[in-house]
Amino acid sequence: MRFDEAYSGKVFIKSRPTHEDAKAIIFGMPMDWTVSFRPGSRFGPNRIREASIGLEEYSPYLDRHLEDVSYFDAGDIPLPFGNPARSIAMIREYADQIIEKGKFPLGLGGEHLVTWPLIEAIYQKYPDLAVIHIDAHADLRVDYEGEPLSHSTPIRKACEKIGAENVYSFGIRSGGDRDEFRYAEESGLYMAKFEVAKPLKEILPKLAGRPVYVTIDIDVLDPAFAPGTGTAEAGGISSREMLEAIHAIAQSDVHVVGADLVEVAPNYDPTEQTVIAASKFVREILLGWVK
Amino acid sequence: MRFDEAYSGKVFIKSRPTHEDAKAIIFGMPMDWTVSFRPGSRFGPNRIREASIGLEEYSPYLDRHLEDVSYFDAGDIPLPFGNPARSIAMIREYADQIIEKGKFPLGLGGEHLVTWPLIEAIYQKYPDLAVIHIDAHADLRVDYEGEPLSHSTPIRKACEKIGAENVYSFGIRSGGDRDEFRYAEESGLYMAKFEVAKPLKEILPKLAGRPVYVTIDIDVLDPAFAPGTGTAEAGGISSREMLEAIHAIAQSDVHVVGADLVEVAPNYDPTEQTVIAASKFVREILLGWVK
Amino acid sequence: MRFDEAYSGKVFIKSRPTHEDAKAIIFGMPMDWTVSFRPGSRFGPNRIREASIGLEEYSPYLDRHLEDVSYFDAGDIPLPFGNPARSIAMIREYADQIIEKGKFPLGLGGEHLVTWPLIEAIYQKYPDLAVIHIDAHADLRVDYEGEPLSHSTPIRKACEKIGAENVYSFGIRSGGDRDEFRYAEESGLYMAKFEVAKPLKEILPKLAGRPVYVTIDIDVLDPAFAPGTGTAEAGGISSREMLEAIHAIAQSDVHVVGADLVEVAPNYDPTEQTVIAASKFVREILLGWVK
Amino acid sequence: MRFDEAYSGKVFIKSRPTHEDAKAIIFGMPMDWTVSFRPGSRFGPNRIREASIGLEEYSPYLDRHLEDVSYFDAGDIPLPFGNPARSIAMIREYADQIIEKGKFPLGLGGEHLVTWPLIEAIYQKYPDLAVIHIDAHADLRVDYEGEPLSHSTPIRKACEKIGAENVYSFGIRSGGDRDEFRYAEESGLYMAKFEVAKPLKEILPKLAGRPVYVTIDIDVLDPAFAPGTGTAEAGGISSREMLEAIHAIAQSDVHVVGADLVEVAPNYDPTEQTVIAASKFVREILLGWVK
Amino acid sequence: MRFDEAYSGKVFIKSRPTHEDAKAIIFGMPMDWTVSFRPGSRFGPNRIREASIGLEEYSPYLDRHLEDVSYFDAGDIPLPFGNPARSIAMIREYADQIIEKGKFPLGLGGEHLVTWPLIEAIYQKYPDLAVIHIDAHADLRVDYEGEPLSHSTPIRKACEKIGAENVYSFGIRSGGDRDEFRYAEESGLYMAKFEVAKPLKEILPKLAGRPVYVTIDIDVLDPAFAPGTGTAEAGGISSREMLEAIHAIAQSDVHVVGADLVEVAPNYDPTEQTVIAASKFVREILLGWVK
Amino acid sequence: MRFDEAYSGKVFIKSRPTHEDAKAIIFGMPMDWTVSFRPGSRFGPNRIREASIGLEEYSPYLDRHLEDVSYFDAGDIPLPFGNPARSIAMIREYADQIIEKGKFPLGLGGEHLVTWPLIEAIYQKYPDLAVIHIDAHADLRVDYEGEPLSHSTPIRKACEKIGAENVYSFGIRSGGDRDEFRYAEESGLYMAKFEVAKPLKEILPKLAGRPVYVTIDIDVLDPAFAPGTGTAEAGGISSREMLEAIHAIAQSDVHVVGADLVEVAPNYDPTEQTVIAASKFVREILLGWVK
Repeated sequence: MRFDEAYSGKVFIKSRPTHEDAKAIIFGMPMDWTVSFRPGSRFGPNRIREASIGLEEYSPYLDRHLEDVSYFDAGDIPLPFGNPARSIAMIREYADQIIEKGKFPLGLGGEHLVTWPLIEAIYQKYPDLAVIHIDAHADLRVDYEGEPLSHSTPIRKACEKIGAENVYSFGIRSGGDRDEFRYAEESGLYMAKFEVAKPLKEILPKLAGRPVYVTIDIDVLDPAFAPGTGTAEAGGISSREMLEAIHAIAQSDVHVVGADLVEVAPNYDPTEQTVIAASKFVREILLGWVK
Repeated sequence: MRFDEAYSGKVFIKSRPTHEDAKAIIFGMPMDWTVSFRPGSRFGPNRIREASIGLEEYSPYLDRHLEDVSYFDAGDIPLPFGNPARSIAMIREYADQIIEKGKFPLGLGGEHLVTWPLIEAIYQKYPDLAVIHIDAHADLRVDYEGEPLSHSTPIRKACEKIGAENVYSFGIRSGGDRDEFRYAEESGLYMAKFEVAKPLKEILPKLAGRPVYVTIDIDVLDPAFAPGTGTAEAGGISSREMLEAIHAIAQSDVHVVGADLVEVAPNYDPTEQTVIAASKFVREILLGWVK
Repeated sequence: MRFDEAYSGKVFIKSRPTHEDAKAIIFGMPMDWTVSFRPGSRFGPNRIREASIGLEEYSPYLDRHLEDVSYFDAGDIPLPFGNPARSIAMIREYADQIIEKGKFPLGLGGEHLVTWPLIEAIYQKYPDLAVIHIDAHADLRVDYEGEPLSHSTPIRKACEKIGAENVYSFGIRSGGDRDEFRYAEESGLYMAKFEVAKPLKEILPKLAGRPVYVTIDIDVLDPAFAPGTGTAEAGGISSREMLEAIHAIAQSDVHVVGADLVEVAPNYDPTEQTVIAASKFVREILLGWVK
Repeated sequence: MRFDEAYSGKVFIKSRPTHEDAKAIIFGMPMDWTVSFRPGSRFGPNRIREASIGLEEYSPYLDRHLEDVSYFDAGDIPLPFGNPARSIAMIREYADQIIEKGKFPLGLGGEHLVTWPLIEAIYQKYPDLAVIHIDAHADLRVDYEGEPLSHSTPIRKACEKIGAENVYSFGIRSGGDRDEFRYAEESGLYMAKFEVAKPLKEILPKLAGRPVYVTIDIDVLDPAFAPGTGTAEAGGISSREMLEAIHAIAQSDVHVVGADLVEVAPNYDPTEQTVIAASKFVREILLGWVK
Repeated sequence: MRFDEAYSGKVFIKSRPTHEDAKAIIFGMPMDWTVSFRPGSRFGPNRIREASIGLEEYSPYLDRHLEDVSYFDAGDIPLPFGNPARSIAMIREYADQIIEKGKFPLGLGGEHLVTWPLIEAIYQKYPDLAVIHIDAHADLRVDYEGEPLSHSTPIRKACEKIGAENVYSFGIRSGGDRDEFRYAEESGLYMAKFEVAKPLKEILPKLAGRPVYVTIDIDVLDPAFAPGTGTAEAGGISSREMLEAIHAIAQSDVHVVGADLVEVAPNYDPTEQTVIAASKFVREILLGWVK
Repeated sequence: MRFDEAYSGKVFIKSRPTHEDAKAIIFGMPMDWTVSFRPGSRFGPNRIREASIGLEEYSPYLDRHLEDVSYFDAGDIPLPFGNPARSIAMIREYADQIIEKGKFPLGLGGEHLVTWPLIEAIYQKYPDLAVIHIDAHADLRVDYEGEPLSHSTPIRKACEKIGAENVYSFGIRSGGDRDEFRYAEESGLYMAKFEVAKPLKEILPKLAGRPVYVTIDIDVLDPAFAPGTGTAEAGGISSREMLEAIHAIAQSDVHVVGADLVEVAPNYDPTEQTVIAASKFVREILLGWVK
């Protein structure tokens, strides 16, 4: 091999060399400034890439190979430390470009607040957008101790933007107070508590044909399966159920137009199992949702 | 805020400032001197308190908020290193005071031997006491290599004190020898092997109206869910099943008069998932059992 | 006690002092030179021994005690670093001796390639041998980037030696490419994807009376239950299902003539839960399969 | 002992029960929102308290016992996540109260930016204040990528407030660019590169009689001695040299009027040696500087 | 190789197969029941053995090879959990046998209390015994909170047995209270604070020709060099200074008649550097002191 | 910013985008197949790159900024697992290209055997080459248990190729047997045991004007400073002494024509201090040696 052609830098395995011939764009959003408990999701995207080295390229679940789908790993957006407002503006601008070129944005967090500008950007193109939200936490607060830009508010913001009746939450087992759950009930938002795969399979037919954005917070998994996250919450689902959910979406008739996987904080998990699981989820998303 | 009113020291979240206006008393028993495999549960109570910072205060399982229940975290009893007999005497004396004031004792271990003086103290007040014992280990030994004060003997002692027919063990998947299991069979003790939630739901109606003490050894969970414990034992239950058990007791007609959660040894778990799970169990116990 | 009789060195608990009065021989194969992702299974055998200290000697699953079965822990074979060919030859020679003496070989890996010489050795004695293969990975490659001696090839080699129709794989959820799965389909090999206990119980009656070799790759477990392995793969089975599989074999009519447990890499698991689970599996194998 | 008198919560060992009879006030500032590399110093103060349990109460260096000095551990200031401006305002207000009561503020960080409001508060009372700054980093930036409230700016701010000629930096071995070092040279600030104890002993006589504030960034130590910090920097001093520096100040004629110890991020150090060292430094500061 | 000759179990490298042809006996004392801070030294001896695999067998410091010295690793004494009195009696009896046979006892701890019965046993044979004590802690307490059998008392007991003027302590930088240091001054015990190699080289000529027992507490090293210990204490010596001390003794004219290395608690050190250093110290002790 | 210009993948900070305008080429050699103790240096190069994010770009030691030197990080050479011979051939071919283009090769290991093909390649261009070898181990074996391609042989091979009198070893404190040290003495090789900076400063003037290749094994540092390495060896130098050595070479009159830094195995160091130190060494090498 020639030295000027060696594997240059670390990207998700099988990334195409440029964005031109790629249908999907993987990008990291290394932001964790508003996290209330354990920070560190800023290191999530790169460790997910690193763990992808250990993945097989073929999925026996979907009988597809990573070479069957084209994507470009664009690296991390260089977000400014401690400045949520500017970070969100940068993510928004970045996502706008991807969408403008007709590509599938696949964002890696970072804290959950990064989902907000992504949904805004997608919604502009798809006014009939639905959001599938898979998470341990409702994230429906108006603000967090007075701060509207918080990792516990993005789904509330999404509801207010696209209509709560277009938001479907799964796996919720924690929320800050009764108000979040009361809002869920009164606003028309769909919420499946504790479970993911079963209620999702019931909802998917109702969304057939619609453009859907999917946001996955890794903490929907039990800490046994994903200890490397900021706000781990006991009582969650297994990696197997998460895979089942990804495959259910892949085999449904919804039209996935963008997705993110957030809150992977690798430093709390010396076993690396969280990034190993997350990189497998990314592979299955690429193979199943990017068409 | 005024500096002399700042959050002073570390207690379980939402602890009342004094015991006077509290129904339940949380207290730590940092003792691990008789542990045969991996010591370290002496650090359990304080790390459970620390992890409580990451908890939401509202439970969507029980639709209750920590402000709906009054409790005081009294800190750890200063037990003497390496002296099981004196430690047990101190715990007994401590528990007597709590019970005398009509409060609910909620003890955090420490090794399982600490349960013995707690049951003794409770039994004095409630002669018709039943004990629900949730654990990977039978803990029915008469002694451990000649030593009657051992972490593998407390349930045997309880049986001899309150009558084996009043003790109900769940989740048992390990025991030192056939004698423990033979004793279980012959003594009239109820033992559900391997499982917890299902058999518990069958037993609870039989205990309706009775005063019940509940002791939970964190190692009933599979090490996947609670690696931070001294004698981890593969093949256990999930955090979800543990929550299901806590909620089943909460919704039953038994009269819980005291409880403990023992054998959390945080140093074996750098992911902190064990204390994160334990602090959630404590929250649900407070919300569900303290009435 | 006399100082010249003290517990001398570290072996699996209750190992007999010499091989003469032992039915089974435990031995380690500390080899990981062809591992593609995370090396370190060379340390597996000794840490499994160390964790056996924390085991109870009695199994409530099988109602048997380790004193009911005779085995000798012979230590590790001193394999040459970085030389797969010589290592395999040494394992083969070693296994031949055990089999010649009519003893049950129970090998601890080490990478999965060590299984290949063990199957060869057993097959020489039992020409009607069947192999039960429990693993996350198909391990059916002809070679790995041109190298036929690789940790991803042993089951392919076994198929070619004893006939693919005599190989039964369980729990497979990963493979390098379509070719492995196509080979599985076309060759007559039995493969149960994703699950272990249920399909195994269906197959066992068909193998009644036959000599069977069982190879277990610890990575069949989900990383939640066994993070300490080289190529962890999300979406696996629980420790409980693994125990169920071991017990199903124990209670079946197959004639287990040898076994191995491979790919335990303890350094990736500071919680030690992987070696704790593995040592329990070894105990149940000894109690259930050595007759 | 009586249960309502048990050790209630976790404070630095030998803390007095109230602030009234205390000369010094220990308080935590759990803020890390502007950290550019590894966040997590928000957990520093509580883990330093926890590690103090392992300390002996007597110092053979100073021949003093913790009972010889009175201090109150007031807990952590509840700072708002992700909001540097409000956090700094709260710290300022908090410090003002301590100083007003004539007490010695001993702050535990948190990121280094917390030093800025402390110096402001102290300076108001002592217009002839000098600052001793012990750190790996110059922290002399005007801003960090446009953000003036950054963990790399507090010493620049201090220079501008109290005059660069009143600031003495020791141990500096890193800085963002030439500008920081050029500013150091041109502004009149004293800077000792790489070393601490030797240059400090030369400077202390010049400061005799003056009120001095001392700020210690734990990263002045080599990562070998303090791996648990956000921006670890190889090539630092030993714990022994840090102790030597603390004792040199204790035995000098300067009048220490306040101090802080910042940037302890315990999650990066599973050995706990960073908090163990930090808690010893706090003990020696209490014994040596609070008079 | 023949399978019945394989490396059987885990012993310190190059251990002779039986004690008969060995001059020195290595044995473990896995006891940590009286430890006040972080327990776990019970696992020290076996992890030191395991780390010895990574050692070279030749010492360029002493120009000797492990084959030049004969020793037998007898394994661990099976001490009863939580029973200090019986444990000490067993160690005493065990040591008596070794000494009776004229062999060199080299004990591995375990907590420092194990040194007490070893000194008693040696003293019986050598009434003119001197003790070299290398440690961070004075260990001169009469009792610990009323308990005379504590890890902080063994040197006091030794002083009372063999005369304080025959005890030489080095590296001491911590003690419970002034009384320990006052006792040191008044009793005639020699104590070098903070340093080891330099004062030791001054003392060794005074001990020429005398029988000497050497006890090394690993916590004399700074936690940077030995984080895996129960009561880590910042400000200690380096591994290099420890080696220098061992070599100074080796090259002196004292007659070393026994030694121990205690307080290695491997679970606090995931880097394994503590056991790696300890195993090297054991090698140098074997090569330098066993003559 | 435009999404197709985002930071693409992970390289050493400030790497130029292509090799054309770069004087030096950084490349990884992720090979650890012949390691005898703890494998894992295959992950070294990428974690050094990752840690470079935390570095400041300016060096106060050398008063130079990373923008003052041009280099290209070419990524890792994709070496075949478990095949030392082919790996070495690939490295050789790769290095030949770099040298042919007149660029400075800066290789990151990987095990020390990778140094051998690099020296061969450089020597072809510079027949009067001298080698500076900084390491804990002599690496002078002819073979390792019969295997000539071993991590303990590269310096022997270098001696035989370029003449032992042209090889200068520093910091050596371990070797497999007397033969290595006897060879050192008899062959004319220069060896400074235990120390690095002082003897190096004595030797450098003798090498003035000569082309010099420098190979640094990270294990020359004490495990306190670099625990993340395969064969950690207590008694080493500090990070500060390593920096002093790098700067001494930078300020000397030797003509450095290539260099490597090997044996960084990040998984043994959860504190990340080893890669943090290594990335700083790389920065100083770039700033000081590439002219």
